[in-house]
Amino acid sequence: MCWVDGGVFIGVLLALACLVTADPIQEEDRSRVRRDVKSSPSVADRPGCRPGAVAPPNRVITTSRLAALRALFPANGGIHAYIVPSEDAHQSEYVTEYDKRRQYISGFSGSAGFAVVLLDKAALWTDGRYFLQGEAQLDCNWIFMKAGAGAPKMTTWLISELKDIPGAKVGVNPFLMSSRAWTRNSYKLSNEGITLVGTRDLIDVIWTAGRPAPADTPINALELKFSGKRWQDKMVDLRREMTEHNVAAVVVTSLDETAWLFNLRASDIPYNPFFISYAIVEHARIRLYIVSADSKLSRSPTDRETTNRLYEHLNTRTNGTCVGVGGLCVQVIEYDPETVKTDIKALTDARSDVNVWVTPYCSQGIVSAIPKTNAVQRFSSISVAKAMKNKVETQGMFNAHNRDSAVLIKFMAFLEREVKEEKHWTEMSAADKLKEYREAEQYNRGLSFESISASGSNGAIIHYSPEATTNKAISTRDMYLLDSGGQYLDGTTDVTRTFHFGNPTDYEKECYTRVLMGSIDLAQLVWPKGLTRKDIDVLARRPLWDVGLIYRHGTSHGVGAYLSVHEAIAPSSGVLAENMFLSDEPGFYEDGKFGIRLETIVMVENKTTKYSFPSTRFLGYKPVQLVPFERNLINPSMLSKDQTDWLNRYHAEVERTVGPLVAGSAGYEWLKHRTKPF
Amino acid sequence: MCWVDGGVFIGVLLALACLVTADPIQEEDRSRVRRDVKSSPSVADRPGCRPGAVAPPNRVITTSRLAALRALFPANGGIHAYIVPSEDAHQSEYVTEYDKRRQYISGFSGSAGFAVVLLDKAALWTDGRYFLQGEAQLDCNWIFMKAGAGAPKMTTWLISELKDIPGAKVGVNPFLMSSRAWTRNSYKLSNEGITLVGTRDLIDVIWTAGRPAPADTPINALELKFSGKRWQDKMVDLRREMTEHNVAAVVVTSLDETAWLFNLRASDIPYNPFFISYAIVEHARIRLYIVSADSKLSRSPTDRETTNRLYEHLNTRTNGTCVGVGGLCVQVIEYDPETVKTDIKALTDARSDVNVWVTPYCSQGIVSAIPKTNAVQRFSSISVAKAMKNKVETQGMFNAHNRDSAVLIKFMAFLEREVKEEKHWTEMSAADKLKEYREAEQYNRGLSFESISASGSNGAIIHYSPEATTNKAISTRDMYLLDSGGQYLDGTTDVTRTFHFGNPTDYEKECYTRVLMGSIDLAQLVWPKGLTRKDIDVLARRPLWDVGLIYRHGTSHGVGAYLSVHEAIAPSSGVLAENMFLSDEPGFYEDGKFGIRLETIVMVENKTTKYSFPSTRFLGYKPVQLVPFERNLINPSMLSKDQTDWLNRYHAEVERTVGPLVAGSAGYEWLKHRTKPF
Repeated sequence: MCWVDGGVFIGVLLALACLVTADPIQEEDRSRVRRDVKSSPSVADRPGCRPGAVAPPNRVITTSRLAALRALFPANGGIHAYIVPSEDAHQSEYVTEYDKRRQYISGFSGSAGFAVVLLDKAALWTDGRYFLQGEAQLDCNWIFMKAGAGAPKMTTWLISELKDIPGAKVGVNPFLMSSRAWTRNSYKLSNEGITLVGTRDLIDVIWTAGRPAPADTPINALELKFSGKRWQDKMVDLRREMTEHNVAAVVVTSLDETAWLFNLRASDIPYNPFFISYAIVEHARIRLYIVSADSKLSRSPTDRETTNRLYEHLNTRTNGTCVGVGGLCVQVIEYDPETVKTDIKALTDARSDVNVWVTPYCSQGIVSAIPKTNAVQRFSSISVAKAMKNKVETQGMFNAHNRDSAVLIKFMAFLEREVKEEKHWTEMSAADKLKEYREAEQYNRGLSFESISASGSNGAIIHYSPEATTNKAISTRDMYLLDSGGQYLDGTTDVTRTFHFGNPTDYEKECYTRVLMGSIDLAQLVWPKGLTRKDIDVLARRPLWDVGLIYRHGTSHGVGAYLSVHEAIAPSSGVLAENMFLSDEPGFYEDGKFGIRLETIVMVENKTTKYSFPSTRFLGYKPVQLVPFERNLINPSMLSKDQTDWLNRYHAEVERTVGPLVAGSAGYEWLKHRTKPF
Repeated sequence: MCWVDGGVFIGVLLALACLVTADPIQEEDRSRVRRDVKSSPSVADRPGCRPGAVAPPNRVITTSRLAALRALFPANGGIHAYIVPSEDAHQSEYVTEYDKRRQYISGFSGSAGFAVVLLDKAALWTDGRYFLQGEAQLDCNWIFMKAGAGAPKMTTWLISELKDIPGAKVGVNPFLMSSRAWTRNSYKLSNEGITLVGTRDLIDVIWTAGRPAPADTPINALELKFSGKRWQDKMVDLRREMTEHNVAAVVVTSLDETAWLFNLRASDIPYNPFFISYAIVEHARIRLYIVSADSKLSRSPTDRETTNRLYEHLNTRTNGTCVGVGGLCVQVIEYDPETVKTDIKALTDARSDVNVWVTPYCSQGIVSAIPKTNAVQRFSSISVAKAMKNKVETQGMFNAHNRDSAVLIKFMAFLEREVKEEKHWTEMSAADKLKEYREAEQYNRGLSFESISASGSNGAIIHYSPEATTNKAISTRDMYLLDSGGQYLDGTTDVTRTFHFGNPTDYEKECYTRVLMGSIDLAQLVWPKGLTRKDIDVLARRPLWDVGLIYRHGTSHGVGAYLSVHEAIAPSSGVLAENMFLSDEPGFYEDGKFGIRLETIVMVENKTTKYSFPSTRFLGYKPVQLVPFERNLINPSMLSKDQTDWLNRYHAEVERTVGPLVAGSAGYEWLKHRTKPF
């Protein structure tokens, strides 16, 4: 699955540092050099809000919601503006229905963006993936801020709007803003006499009618045969790190970190096997904050691979005493960010010399509970250990990908035959069918994200998901881009292939082959340990650049093991290390025509080289997902000998490993044809 | 010329962020994660300071100098430690003899490193280029801190040494430390209760006897036919930028910036045509601070291409009135950093709402004169305009490089014949001879750096310069690495070629060919505008990585036009833009055996591509220095077709452009043989 450039995504969107762009550096630089504010966008800039324009029928009219929100300003610190981020209190990339505050206030349903409401204006920022959607969904109360396309930064706009108000204040729920973004925004605003203030959540006050209930899905243990390490052993490692760094407590705030640390999974967030939670780990105490704590503890497992109850898995009673003898146990507490904040505060209230460890993307709400001199804010060893899969997780990831490859091969063999027989398949019906295939597979726990099933020109919309109004037929005349993945107990998958079931043009073949060349060049690279994805990214792009083409998204994201399909590459600097799983996914998009993306999950491994430079270890990628490329779209004369050799080796590996899993099905012939050596 | 990795070099060494290393990011990350201080290095770690070790005869004994320095601590703020940086008050990479304070106090003469003197200890930090030299030169008063090889950071060490002293203070001359380094160091120390304090320069107090006089070389105007733009027109541009950014004054502190801005050159610093100076540019006034202002203004030009006197060039009398009518003129003031500081302070004392613009690497001494709310600290348009050469400068750079290529070709033809005839040539005699060749060339103003003339194993020492004790003969059995360059009125050159006049081994040929492949791959790249050197750097390294080899230095540095051979790539983010001149210089070094470096100056230019992606411009390099590669060391079967084509095109260009300049000399046959197509 393709994602937004710039490393760790979570929680940084507020700073607009992380949008889809080919040259984030240049953008940043330009903004640094030019301080002057361009004429501010207004509602009048929106084509759909000009006199005589007709609004789309399903637009949410936000007038009364905005009025209700503004009515709360005086009693809540007398603020002049209120920021509504899209993140939840854990800075999640995807949030529960309950947490879609920004969507509620603005009507805009895209995954990224934030709203700012003044007393007389309202503005919504999002990035290039959502310009069309935002224009359609926002009613004419909203100024539409197209980030990366001339829109001012949030702070710049706030300053221009509020600078003449003495003592102007901007409010936000501090749990919904990372402390980094808070610090940066607060600094910029305060330079102009504007104060950023934390308030209670004002959307929570006005959004009562029709609001979905907070997520509260069953929590199941992940068996040792999948996790590879008992949570108790993970605690020992973490506490060793705590001792080394002289910290008394680690506050775990990211949902994939609590899930990983305790070997627990749920389904509070679509496509993400998480449960809304915080944890505080000390040397002598472990506290886990979850929704409906009491009832969850004793409920029977709902997952068929889980045999014991949550209280047994965590070795605990609600009151915090251990069930077993002498082992570690977890005190389970009812979830409430304010409770967590109070408990964190108590740590340093009790002893002023203890250090508390939080991640860089932790919310301001949590960080503000720790005195500055006691806060250690950096990635903990959890993120490193989670990214560098252990042996069992590694084997699980390969197993899951092999099964998932087999699923996709069987499905594509079926779909291609149907389309060639001129049966009616659409983007949506194909995605639904593929979902059925995946859900029937061993250990499957649903999809890892909503499938991007895109025919012809829809493929050029990078984050497209088919809807009734856009749903196109799949034909032998168009390219078909399919980006999909599954959640399995033993691993998370994510794969993109692009097809053409008819006669592609030479230009389509050239573009596809260049994307493939980039994918191979990156997959073949051997590099000295110490580099980041960004350092080697150019290899995936060069074959397109050679002829003046580009793609505006990143080439690699981390992937979790039955966790998030977009996992942060840790440590924070993003240095690649052994047993990290990443995507290798260059693409090319021709607006209004077609899209190509080739995404293969690869694993970082040690590589043996012809010579050995002193004290230097070399790393490289090993392909994990094994799905053939589209023979019909490859121009083999464009490939170098190295590239052809790699492709033939890859296809031979597909046949050797996945062949047996599809033997006897139509998928086998499909695979055989597509894996013939060039 | 090869340099230290990490972008802008100047002034950042104090932070140890910028040393020779293949993975600065990893280093940084490690230091971020591990806070614990390793057991501190001590004098006892030094092999040359163990009982019975014999000191090299030419070591400077620093005992009395250290005693004199320490005696000043009580009366100068009661400091407990004093930092002696290697930079001057302009954060220059190279400094005048007068400014070699760090060398005076420590005895260590390397170009990079800094000293810290406590009451009972003294420590010197430098990087891997200087580990052997430091060990030899430092007497046994000194702890040797090998940066990047286990030494603690300066602040970490200071904290471990001073943390138990209540109110501990560390002194430094604030003009010798960049404000960035000051802020960072001050912050880290203050967290542990230690204060960084600015003092007068204590080395200036103790270093009187035998100290060289301050540099005071004649200043000459650079004619318009070389500069391409009158200084008056540069001022108009600068003032336009000042208006756009709402600043009242720009303080120019870098020596290459004052030289460029006023179209003036001198030779205060070896290899650098600079004069010790500051400038303050306001909308209605321009002040230039130089040494011996009065006498320099009226002196006759000493440069044969300069016809008018300094006062005529600057259109000024010492009292600041203009000589001409209505034009811009410069007020010339006697150089003294304290005077400059006072004058800067007066700007905001007079009006509290004016902004003053300084560069990010400006010294703390200067920055401290500006109230925080009035300081605008970022690269000014000077650095951008200087890096993106104008038409005349561009043509001058090509002309200078063509002549310089011809010089090198003639010299190498001579040297190769002599060596093959078994005449005795050494690294030093060859470097001296090449200097003669260069100095005889049109517009030459000396060398742009001390030649790296290195035979056999000396080539593996990246920053080697031959000395009497290391001087090796050049033979037909060894590789010969020659990195050299000249200063010309129309441009600065820098070129490295590696030779073998006998029968290289297959391994030597493979290594050379891989370095060449990297050089070509980088030179051939076409990229969308918006990238930095770092983004594309991997291409130069990949052919070596493929077989497990690396080099530990950067691949590209900027080059000035009759300015510094190491010029910052501006703007600060380092985004590459048209008409910037850079080096393309991969290498490979086998300790104790040989060194290979191939350095070609290239220019960034717009490239036309087969297709045109909307709103995207493509850039690429055009070779500027035209010197053939070593046929004897190339294994043509390793080159791809693209690489062979590039090499043949390059050699054809060498013949077409430089051939006529060496016609009739032995260099012509040498060139003809080496430029035959593969």
